[in-house]
Amino acid sequence: MKKNKTSSSSGGGGGGGGAEAAAAMRVIVPLQGVVQGRGGLVLGSVIPCALLYFIQLYFRSRGGGGGDGREKSPPAAEAEQSSPALQRVHSRTLLFSRGHAPPPHVSSRAAAIAQNCNGPYYAGLERAHDDPYDDVANPDGVIHLALSHNTLVSDLVGEWVADHCAESLFGQELNMSDVAAYQPFDGLMELKMATSRFMSWHTGKGRFFDPENIVLTSGAAPAVEMLVFSLADTGNAFLVPSPYCPDLDEVKWRTGVEFIPVPCRRTDAFAISINALDRAFNQAKNRRQKVRGIIISNPSNPAGVLHSREVLETLLDFATEKNIHIISIESVLASEEFVSMTEVAEDVDKTRVHIVHALSNDLSVPSLATEFIYTCNETVLASVKKLARFSSVSVPTQRVLTSMLSDTKFVGNAVKVTRERIRRMRAGLAHGLRKSGIECVGSDGGLYCWADMSPLIRSYSEKGEIEMFDRLLSVAKINAVPGCSCHSVELGWFGFCFASLREEDIDIVLRRIRTVSDAGRSPR
Amino acid sequence: MKKNKTSSSSGGGGGGGGAEAAAAMRVIVPLQGVVQGRGGLVLGSVIPCALLYFIQLYFRSRGGGGGDGREKSPPAAEAEQSSPALQRVHSRTLLFSRGHAPPPHVSSRAAAIAQNCNGPYYAGLERAHDDPYDDVANPDGVIHLALSHNTLVSDLVGEWVADHCAESLFGQELNMSDVAAYQPFDGLMELKMATSRFMSWHTGKGRFFDPENIVLTSGAAPAVEMLVFSLADTGNAFLVPSPYCPDLDEVKWRTGVEFIPVPCRRTDAFAISINALDRAFNQAKNRRQKVRGIIISNPSNPAGVLHSREVLETLLDFATEKNIHIISIESVLASEEFVSMTEVAEDVDKTRVHIVHALSNDLSVPSLATEFIYTCNETVLASVKKLARFSSVSVPTQRVLTSMLSDTKFVGNAVKVTRERIRRMRAGLAHGLRKSGIECVGSDGGLYCWADMSPLIRSYSEKGEIEMFDRLLSVAKINAVPGCSCHSVELGWFGFCFASLREEDIDIVLRRIRTVSDAGRSPR
Repeated sequence: MKKNKTSSSSGGGGGGGGAEAAAAMRVIVPLQGVVQGRGGLVLGSVIPCALLYFIQLYFRSRGGGGGDGREKSPPAAEAEQSSPALQRVHSRTLLFSRGHAPPPHVSSRAAAIAQNCNGPYYAGLERAHDDPYDDVANPDGVIHLALSHNTLVSDLVGEWVADHCAESLFGQELNMSDVAAYQPFDGLMELKMATSRFMSWHTGKGRFFDPENIVLTSGAAPAVEMLVFSLADTGNAFLVPSPYCPDLDEVKWRTGVEFIPVPCRRTDAFAISINALDRAFNQAKNRRQKVRGIIISNPSNPAGVLHSREVLETLLDFATEKNIHIISIESVLASEEFVSMTEVAEDVDKTRVHIVHALSNDLSVPSLATEFIYTCNETVLASVKKLARFSSVSVPTQRVLTSMLSDTKFVGNAVKVTRERIRRMRAGLAHGLRKSGIECVGSDGGLYCWADMSPLIRSYSEKGEIEMFDRLLSVAKINAVPGCSCHSVELGWFGFCFASLREEDIDIVLRRIRTVSDAGRSPR
Repeated sequence: MKKNKTSSSSGGGGGGGGAEAAAAMRVIVPLQGVVQGRGGLVLGSVIPCALLYFIQLYFRSRGGGGGDGREKSPPAAEAEQSSPALQRVHSRTLLFSRGHAPPPHVSSRAAAIAQNCNGPYYAGLERAHDDPYDDVANPDGVIHLALSHNTLVSDLVGEWVADHCAESLFGQELNMSDVAAYQPFDGLMELKMATSRFMSWHTGKGRFFDPENIVLTSGAAPAVEMLVFSLADTGNAFLVPSPYCPDLDEVKWRTGVEFIPVPCRRTDAFAISINALDRAFNQAKNRRQKVRGIIISNPSNPAGVLHSREVLETLLDFATEKNIHIISIESVLASEEFVSMTEVAEDVDKTRVHIVHALSNDLSVPSLATEFIYTCNETVLASVKKLARFSSVSVPTQRVLTSMLSDTKFVGNAVKVTRERIRRMRAGLAHGLRKSGIECVGSDGGLYCWADMSPLIRSYSEKGEIEMFDRLLSVAKINAVPGCSCHSVELGWFGFCFASLREEDIDIVLRRIRTVSDAGRSPR
């Protein structure tokens, strides 16, 4: 009985008023279940009855004394919000104390988002925004290595744009029928077709990707959010191998769906462990929490592990056995060896696999903020097409991307050059870090160096890790992603994204990190 | 007791599994309240206890026969999903019947969206998309008058773009620091500043609009959605004067918040009635439903009523008295007499007023899909800034808008010419309709003619209205907005948006409508 109570409170976290009512139900319902299992219909009703009695008794003795509702401590106010049973008492005290009008209500889910978005990761984003490095204008500014924005071939893009701007943009865009006609929110068919050819060429090894199954979105986060919204209800859960990109947590708060981090460990070179997934699934099941799927990124972000075909096949088997979905966030940049989850699912089961592809980021134009969903599940497709109106891409932006993708020679070269630069820059950064006593995992993909700074932290604890993060940010003026923001179980790991650096910046980055690593080592 | 049950079931509609648990709680909780009010702690527990007993008894007798869970009728399967108490039984039957794997779960909120988006309004959108009118290429296509896209001065925009394309677009956009730097998802400060000047000039009568209070979004629907998400939890409600734009219902399904239509009537020339708002508020209160605010559009959409300063002041007084919010969806196009809700709230109470402004639509570039939120409530601002990442605007699109807005001479002229054309086209369309025996309300704003076709419908019922809609769409090839899709209480009204027509198209539209109106009159 005690165990049930604990699990229900953790299960309800993060998810709005409805989630909280659901949590309240989850206190009562498993209890019923326990009793029901032993056949006791009567007991199954009497226990929640007693529970309700004592809850009422407790709050009567606490909040019902007729005083001013606003004098209550914040936790009490929160409890009222989370338990509809108690709102009545509250509204009555409010009626008595009109006069000084209280501020208008703000939703508990908005409050949760505001409250949750304030860890070291967000502090770093803010600093990088307020004081951005520029080799000429602000050479002492913060170098931002915590955002997986790829601009590695922006020089090539610049040349392409200079040649194609006039024809690709407003020229086409402004003919009347185009502007006036009803534009579907999920993207122009021209761009979907160009995207389908891009997929076929770079991730599909020539296979056909139906453009009808593509939905364009204004970013990867909204794409994942729409899928999670469509696959899971408030209070349901997804398994997410960790370390995972901190941005995913915003999807969690937005949808009210719980994300259960499933640790990948150094001893496995941060590969996905099916055993760990199975354990997490069963634990959730014991808590009576519905797991609706797994979210992976390929290559993993930030650890940069490229998942092999075998791993993906095992994952799909696992998902089929448990009857859950897989959301795979993919990028073709990592390597020629990249295998898409669509390829693995092709002849097995396409209805449970949903791809999010970072299109504009793959093309070195992250500021175009256009990514897409590819799904062969008709119900999910219908849902995300409807949701697309909440995250649509402007027509001129789609025109630019269509032109760019249609220039297959340019795209082929851009992808090739990006891969070469990724390899060189990762090698350069990892080599330099090693000289400072910082080992990176032998990552074969991704836009980050995932670096073990644990020998340099002053105490082997999360506090020590955050202290190192602060020193990197304030002393070295480097904004990295700390492991704790990625739900890493291993302490002292940091992600350094090199994809928006120029090659000549690597030395500056290494010099700055060295100031911290040298200082970190001396007191030991 | 019966009344409580009814209200709770209507309150829970539309909003995901959490909402359904909340609905379940709402069956129990008001009952408790009723009893509690008479002092009966014991009764307050015994009644829900009895209720739980009978619910269990009912479902045991119905679904617990040990058979295959998938053989159940759809309503039973749905009941399981909506009541966590019953999931346990279901999961057990699933375990027994592995083998033929059922399809993976899709969320109930996604199912609700797919199910809800299929009225006449959506049929019309689809037809207009599949068979769009073009005077040369497809002269028999559907003329789309159901979308408030404004392209009235796209000729002026075309000229402007021809002169400014090179400098405004990628030229600026592609300098390295701009692409690589961390771009806030809520919009570039340059665009916010240009927007603030635009507001000050066109809606603020010279007052200062703090650019820090602006959040840019990729459309009006996501802007309203972010505000509703931030102000209300699942199961809460907003009052929405009707007829209202059908798109708002998508916000309702997306957020799990209920929208209560508050009828505006022909006898009041479709003006907002504070009495009706008060009645709806009190009815919701009696159902123990929390009303969090009012959503208005100014001018109203589709009825086209421009709200006077007095009406807005009364609305704000009402919102203050009830301690709720106001979301006002505004456009400066209607008339020089337009008064913004910000102006009314200025010295009274700015924390409960939130503006959604259709920026790109006001500038005749709807395909740029860029609108904004303006709010002075710090908590709400913090929340929508975080949510903006799910609906961000690409940087080149923001650059175009910044350039355009900075050209104040162009913008001033564009707004002036748009207003002139609106007046002329509305007058032309309304005059022609009158000649066919169709009266429009004397609307003083907006992009629609709101027309009374009730004398022409074959039966004065919703069926008759939908039949007329079908004839308009299939016979006249005109896609209009039927009143029923706007929650209009008056029957037989239709919205015709003229803002994406050319003036010479008006005659074609009138000729087509006449075929239906003549046919409609003859059988009487």
